Amino acid sequence: MKAWQFTNTHEPLVLNEVPEPVAGEGEVVLEIKAAGLCHSDVGLLEDEGWLSLLAKRPITIGHENAGVVAEVGPGVTGFKVGDRVGVCPTADGVGAPGYAFDGGFAPKMAVDARALVPLPDEVDFVNGAAATDAGMTSYHAIITEGGVKEGDTVGVIGLGGLGQLGAVAGILAGADVYVAEINEKVWPLARQLGVKDVRTSIKDFEGVEFDVIVDYAGFGVTTADAIEMVRPGGTVVQVGMGRLEATINTRTLITRSVTLKGSVGGTKEDVAGVYENMASGRMKPQITTISFDEIPAGLEKLEKGEIVGRLVASYE
Amino acid sequence: MKAWQFTNTHEPLVLNEVPEPVAGEGEVVLEIKAAGLCHSDVGLLEDEGWLSLLAKRPITIGHENAGVVAEVGPGVTGFKVGDRVGVCPTADGVGAPGYAFDGGFAPKMAVDARALVPLPDEVDFVNGAAATDAGMTSYHAIITEGGVKEGDTVGVIGLGGLGQLGAVAGILAGADVYVAEINEKVWPLARQLGVKDVRTSIKDFEGVEFDVIVDYAGFGVTTADAIEMVRPGGTVVQVGMGRLEATINTRTLITRSVTLKGSVGGTKEDVAGVYENMASGRMKPQITTISFDEIPAGLEKLEKGEIVGRLVASYE
Repeated sequence: MKAWQFTNTHEPLVLNEVPEPVAGEGEVVLEIKAAGLCHSDVGLLEDEGWLSLLAKRPITIGHENAGVVAEVGPGVTGFKVGDRVGVCPTADGVGAPGYAFDGGFAPKMAVDARALVPLPDEVDFVNGAAATDAGMTSYHAIITEGGVKEGDTVGVIGLGGLGQLGAVAGILAGADVYVAEINEKVWPLARQLGVKDVRTSIKDFEGVEFDVIVDYAGFGVTTADAIEMVRPGGTVVQVGMGRLEATINTRTLITRSVTLKGSVGGTKEDVAGVYENMASGRMKPQITTISFDEIPAGLEKLEKGEIVGRLVASYE
Repeated sequence: MKAWQFTNTHEPLVLNEVPEPVAGEGEVVLEIKAAGLCHSDVGLLEDEGWLSLLAKRPITIGHENAGVVAEVGPGVTGFKVGDRVGVCPTADGVGAPGYAFDGGFAPKMAVDARALVPLPDEVDFVNGAAATDAGMTSYHAIITEGGVKEGDTVGVIGLGGLGQLGAVAGILAGADVYVAEINEKVWPLARQLGVKDVRTSIKDFEGVEFDVIVDYAGFGVTTADAIEMVRPGGTVVQVGMGRLEATINTRTLITRSVTLKGSVGGTKEDVAGVYENMASGRMKPQITTISFDEIPAGLEKLEKGEIVGRLVASYE
């Protein structure tokens, strides 16, 4: 079969003929139906710093995958041929596709069954793939780390790709969500998503008692402001890395017993949570789809900032 | 009875004749046996900022109390006349003695029974009083907020009064405790307490995988260093307020999923934990004792920095 493989930094992906994968102990082979393209793929092509993360070279990349189980290896329980699934790229005990083992920029992929998440019938493969990265990361931050639940009052800072998915996850969990977004052009979208209110800064919500604030922007001052604005005993979850440092008021942190949590990636449970939200019809990320052949051109467009929303290669 | 009462900022305490307290619904009257003197008492005498925290004036101050139950009001269960108890100054639903109601610088004090913690026979009243502030605060930070348990590897930054009690609480919980303390004169004490190693900075422990680091110093850089040195998924607890700001690396916080928790005060369970540690004979805070009559002079000495360890008035 043909697979898009990475050979070295500053080299284009190569369409290599590779052997079809077989399912080893505990593994399945997936027929890949959709694979997302990510800014980290662009990073890999441009920055030598990523090389140390690769288990081998050449390697088939692609870490946002959804497909159908085509073969089940020995020792696998809970999955059978024909099952629709997504792949959690940060599953416990399993490496990431495209880094630890050959990924999804190929018609087939062998993967440890511990990374599989059943894909509900209501969710197509393109959404199923997109959910495994931005969806999982945003959900993990607000639901798993933030612990947001019905009746909570939640602040979401930054209504970019992650923030939009996070805000919707909060609303679907039954929380009142307030959005701080500096770009007023995005305010109508915020209202459309069903948030209680949208302002420029989280500090503009004086009088609102936030149980949790999730900072999807991360410009240092946003972290500091969130610590000032969350209620005593509340939690601030930090996801965005717009800047790499924040100067925070430790007196506020201490005297108000505030918790600040860094959040990265997620788990199978987070992916399953996103699938549930998508199946409800109320979480619809913006997605641009391309074909398998267009993957290298798609990465170029991603690099140039020409893509709106997530970019997913559909193999159907 | 005679009670040391606060009337106004910049005024000395006054020894007023006040009525003996009676136990209201849900209350007990304690015969106070020991009452700790605290830097916050000095603050109250010097800084108008504290006035707003007082429920009334004049008010009998003293928020670190231990004694014997002398009278039991209606609706109180679990305590009887003659019981030895300490008073949690930050119990749920109860205000602080000396702030919300008359405190322990008097022979007797009425207090909501929800604030009482049984005092083990092995712990004398002087230790029982001292345990309710520095002991509770240090224990709450490392055990309750830090979640330190047997087998954990723990960093303690700052081996002052709180840090010493915290380090011992960690060791008694079965953790390996490493201390970072800039003052080398305290290093022999660290070794005497049974810590694994003591160095100048937490960054000097390269290769040690800290599950939890508790910063009892709080000089900004200590918070930042702790975030760098704790293991991925680990917790940093911030207690010390040597400076009021910290500039932290949010990239490290996020990519390593670090949690930073502000910790203040504690609960009845924390006081009970300190009593258990004291009863074992292995937690022995340094205490200077004075008599009831010496309370105003003791506060002056505290202000001048002439007191080593905690200062407790013993009424026995």
